[in-house]
Amino acid sequence: MSGAWVLGIDIGGTGSRAIAAAVTDEPGETTHPSSESHTLVGDAVQVTTTGSTTLDTAHKLIDRAQREFTDRDPEQLRGVGIGATGMATLVADPTQLLAEISAQVGVPVVIAADAITAHVGALGGAAGAVIAVGTGSIAFGTDFATTWHRVDGWGHVLGDRGSGSWIGMHALQRALATHDGVARGGGALLAAAVQRFGDPETWPGQIYTRPDRAGVLASFTPDVATLAAGGDDQARQLLAEAGTHAAQSLAAALVPSLPQRAAYAGGLFAAGEVFTEAFQAEFARLRPNATVTPAAANPLHGSVHLARMMLSKHQTLPQRAPYLWHNAPFATAWKTDDT
Amino acid sequence: MSGAWVLGIDIGGTGSRAIAAAVTDEPGETTHPSSESHTLVGDAVQVTTTGSTTLDTAHKLIDRAQREFTDRDPEQLRGVGIGATGMATLVADPTQLLAEISAQVGVPVVIAADAITAHVGALGGAAGAVIAVGTGSIAFGTDFATTWHRVDGWGHVLGDRGSGSWIGMHALQRALATHDGVARGGGALLAAAVQRFGDPETWPGQIYTRPDRAGVLASFTPDVATLAAGGDDQARQLLAEAGTHAAQSLAAALVPSLPQRAAYAGGLFAAGEVFTEAFQAEFARLRPNATVTPAAANPLHGSVHLARMMLSKHQTLPQRAPYLWHNAPFATAWKTDDT
Repeated sequence: MSGAWVLGIDIGGTGSRAIAAAVTDEPGETTHPSSESHTLVGDAVQVTTTGSTTLDTAHKLIDRAQREFTDRDPEQLRGVGIGATGMATLVADPTQLLAEISAQVGVPVVIAADAITAHVGALGGAAGAVIAVGTGSIAFGTDFATTWHRVDGWGHVLGDRGSGSWIGMHALQRALATHDGVARGGGALLAAAVQRFGDPETWPGQIYTRPDRAGVLASFTPDVATLAAGGDDQARQLLAEAGTHAAQSLAAALVPSLPQRAAYAGGLFAAGEVFTEAFQAEFARLRPNATVTPAAANPLHGSVHLARMMLSKHQTLPQRAPYLWHNAPFATAWKTDDT
Repeated sequence: MSGAWVLGIDIGGTGSRAIAAAVTDEPGETTHPSSESHTLVGDAVQVTTTGSTTLDTAHKLIDRAQREFTDRDPEQLRGVGIGATGMATLVADPTQLLAEISAQVGVPVVIAADAITAHVGALGGAAGAVIAVGTGSIAFGTDFATTWHRVDGWGHVLGDRGSGSWIGMHALQRALATHDGVARGGGALLAAAVQRFGDPETWPGQIYTRPDRAGVLASFTPDVATLAAGGDDQARQLLAEAGTHAAQSLAAALVPSLPQRAAYAGGLFAAGEVFTEAFQAEFARLRPNATVTPAAANPLHGSVHLARMMLSKHQTLPQRAPYLWHNAPFATAWKTDDT
């Protein structure tokens, strides 16, 4: 395959991915599966006491893409789009990150919070609000011009209300309250948690010593979903609360100044009807005039499309710290020469 | 000062301490302030991805005690009592810890969960239940024979219901839900949290990258207590919920087979009447026939007294993993020779 192409990268807490796709300049086009490469799978980003490993993870994936996408001409790479977890909160200096990655690739780079690439994937660059509910939960409302409204994405200690880590954490808390003899009704959750993690006295050691605590917590959520499907009251209550939280976050992100268009993405929407029904009911109650649909494409495709938006003649992508940084004026001579 | 003495050590998440005291063998005697040394202050124990620093912290304090307690004759040291956080859940091999510390000091050593030393300090070695509510929260009911019932102490992610970290975490969650536009009424909590931690988007970086997350969360609790004292509804509600949680944990630890005697300790009981009134009311509701008093002495004194209990001719201190380990038969010739 030849011709101009862009590289899309998604850097997350449970893994990272990269994909190559042809440059297109048609407004509204989100995905072109037929023109896409296979997906490279890289490291999960780690948050440590010295910061995050976002830059290192991005460097490695770009290096591998340049070597492993053998059907793409490296000279024809036009831009890189990156969505990464924690951009708004945990990456110390995003502009430095932008500079270092640009130096590596020699073409324009756009780096965004994963909430932005989820948005672009879900709504194809159109204005509205999107929620992504997986290990964490973040909602974002934007028109890519004047409105930029983030909701949640605070992590398992401070928020991520309704996410997989939230469900897992609350389920383990209820299991332990039952184990302690303080609460009742959590017997099925306790039995399932012992099945997965062993003796409760080993649980703190399995969680507090791990850098990926949120992922460990979220690993219990499928068990909670199974119990809910089997009719366990406490599991059903937790999943319903989670769906309600997700709807409240999405509604808060869909501020009145935006077109009343919303979309949702993430693994929790496959966690069963207790979650999804609570989500739909609460969102309809809060925003009766809004449309809400599944995401058109995922955040990895969103990162590809974000690179295309940066390069497009049809629109001007703004800079918007702490959500979106790019250097589109960088080496853009090809834009007029080549199109 | 001369004569036989014991060393008591308390190892916690926010600091550690050591104290020397005369050996006594009077049953029921808890503290002898007049015979105690000054207190050495050491490191906070850290929980990292490779385990905890309990052994290193203990080694350093013992080394300092042997050098700095110049009025004690090192040859007259008879035993060491240690209470440490996370013994039941985070220290990989307590018997190894016991062996290494014994090798250092050459006298019997008793190591216990901090819930046990809190209990011994609070009730002087008598049967009953004790709760300690500070950065974390743990309750324990025991008769030092057949009943050993631990409640909570699971850490800020899994429990520690009603503790300083629990209050701080929930207060920050409410502040962020208000910031997100999802909840109302948390305006005062949000303002106080911004005052202490700055822009909300910096909070995840201040918490997730820190090894002492629970301590950072608990550092917000005095602000919550101040707001509660000033009448803020959400702050009052949080402190009342916390007091109720503490009472429920203490009541659960005071199992029917124990004498209905309870005590409480920890900084939260100085956090204002909203907490203490909710605690007293809920405990009286759950255990109307129990007595409940402030702790007679703190966990550091409890570690001294635990060493005395180990050495006493009047009682036999059992071993009870994962709460209590000792090697009293170790080098006890002095016990018959010397008394």
